[in-house]
Amino acid sequence: MSQAQTLTAVQSNPFAKGCAWQDGDYVPIAEAKISVLDWGFTKSDVTYDVVHVWDGAFFRLDDHLDRFLRSVDALRMTLPVDRAGLAAILHGCVARSGLRESYVAMVCTRGLAKPGLPRHPANCENRLIAYAIPWVWVMDEEMQARGAHLVISSVPRIAPESVDPTVKNYHWGDMIRAQFEATDRGADNAVLLGPDGTVAEGPGFNIFALIDGKMVCPDHGALEGVTRQSVLDLCAEIGVPTEVRPLHPDELLEADEVLTCTTAGGVMPVSRVNERIYHNDRPGPVSAKLRELYWKKHKEGWHATPVDYGDN
Amino acid sequence: MSQAQTLTAVQSNPFAKGCAWQDGDYVPIAEAKISVLDWGFTKSDVTYDVVHVWDGAFFRLDDHLDRFLRSVDALRMTLPVDRAGLAAILHGCVARSGLRESYVAMVCTRGLAKPGLPRHPANCENRLIAYAIPWVWVMDEEMQARGAHLVISSVPRIAPESVDPTVKNYHWGDMIRAQFEATDRGADNAVLLGPDGTVAEGPGFNIFALIDGKMVCPDHGALEGVTRQSVLDLCAEIGVPTEVRPLHPDELLEADEVLTCTTAGGVMPVSRVNERIYHNDRPGPVSAKLRELYWKKHKEGWHATPVDYGDN
Repeated sequence: MSQAQTLTAVQSNPFAKGCAWQDGDYVPIAEAKISVLDWGFTKSDVTYDVVHVWDGAFFRLDDHLDRFLRSVDALRMTLPVDRAGLAAILHGCVARSGLRESYVAMVCTRGLAKPGLPRHPANCENRLIAYAIPWVWVMDEEMQARGAHLVISSVPRIAPESVDPTVKNYHWGDMIRAQFEATDRGADNAVLLGPDGTVAEGPGFNIFALIDGKMVCPDHGALEGVTRQSVLDLCAEIGVPTEVRPLHPDELLEADEVLTCTTAGGVMPVSRVNERIYHNDRPGPVSAKLRELYWKKHKEGWHATPVDYGDN
Repeated sequence: MSQAQTLTAVQSNPFAKGCAWQDGDYVPIAEAKISVLDWGFTKSDVTYDVVHVWDGAFFRLDDHLDRFLRSVDALRMTLPVDRAGLAAILHGCVARSGLRESYVAMVCTRGLAKPGLPRHPANCENRLIAYAIPWVWVMDEEMQARGAHLVISSVPRIAPESVDPTVKNYHWGDMIRAQFEATDRGADNAVLLGPDGTVAEGPGFNIFALIDGKMVCPDHGALEGVTRQSVLDLCAEIGVPTEVRPLHPDELLEADEVLTCTTAGGVMPVSRVNERIYHNDRPGPVSAKLRELYWKKHKEGWHATPVDYGDN
């Protein structure tokens, strides 16, 4: 297609701004909604996962499906489709949107209470929603190039004993407070410590610190991120040893490099934490190399599942 | 109106199952929805309050408005209307529903991210939703008559340092786990301890224990419930001393009586906590008296604001 033809196709596609699947139908993203009475809203009784599409292919789709199905099970919810059906819905959302780079979410809410039964999560009709929207950067590209400025938040992360962070969830009250605190303190974003005082995670990202030549990431109190696993895999590939263990904030501040990672952004280097400036205020060499390799390997088809765009 | 006329009126009223206000319009409750991209959903970045209507009148409306406005402010959100405008919307929802007994909610979500700005809670369009639906009992009337059976949950309440429980919120992940645990253990519901091991609250209710003739309720780690205040007021009226202080679970188990209280249920006595059976497995005399008085005073117009039903 010519550029003009492409433009016309995008303008005439009702799913160009995003496509959602709900209750058996594909709808434009603006119509994807949940009832104000859904327990997924009124009690944040919901789990989700996000997989990205880059250059027309899902990245580590199986890992995201595995984690989502585990999360649904952990919350004692049930899906209306099986694993293959779920994958087909995700392909269907991306295909209709026509997006080559996309943020693709699958969400299971507890749903509406069934009438006439006691108020209990077991007495609700669980609901699946999925959608593909244009790519979202957790940190914009300029920020990634100069390295993010973080602060260690005074707000502790919700304890794992209260809400299991390995079951991906929308309990972000602590993260939101930390984000306001970060901008109040002149930073881009925050990293939160767990109730035990060790490093947990930031709003939507895992964290790594390069200490004595080893890439260290926390072993508890955080989501077991798929991109975190990618960083561990890439470190093995380039011969950087890794350690998954409790990470103290003092170690973070004394580290040689710090990076964050997430599905909606990949490997994102950090240049400052609190008053500490790393590597002349720019991404360190190991972080920069990991970021470059992460995207280079995408082009090479690493863990890629091509989207079934049908006729497109 | 005759009973037949009333029935016809209810059947022909599109708001009979509930009426919501959103984006400037009143809509049937089934149409009250939020986008799956609203941060109030995807980050549970939302606050709310619930006031009840009994026999055609709001109960303690000013207290609920006060708390909601404080909560909105604490989360650095802004409402599209002032206090009087908000009250008018609540009246409008109840009036259109025609409900004489109603659960009336006001909800402020962080809203959708404004396009082209960094992902930050300050860069969102806050959204107000309000609705009136038919009365909801947190514990059904039969349960209230025999006394609820509670267990002390093994899941700790989210720490106040992470998410402020005095800002009414939808972070219920811990509560949901506790509710499943309660039914697994053969009980009706659960009470959660805070991270410090003292009694916090249950899913949607505050808790009181009668100890040495005094009604004791926790001083921290829980919502400062409006019904909790009503119980304190009623205790003063009938000459039962009260104490607001840390409450240890051992004291709860050794208490003479235990009760729960909430807007969606009033004063609800407890007959069992774990293996402990209180007062021959039935509500104790002080709890029963408080429950009776709570509803008797409703009939007498205590803290009542009659709903403006207009022509109805």
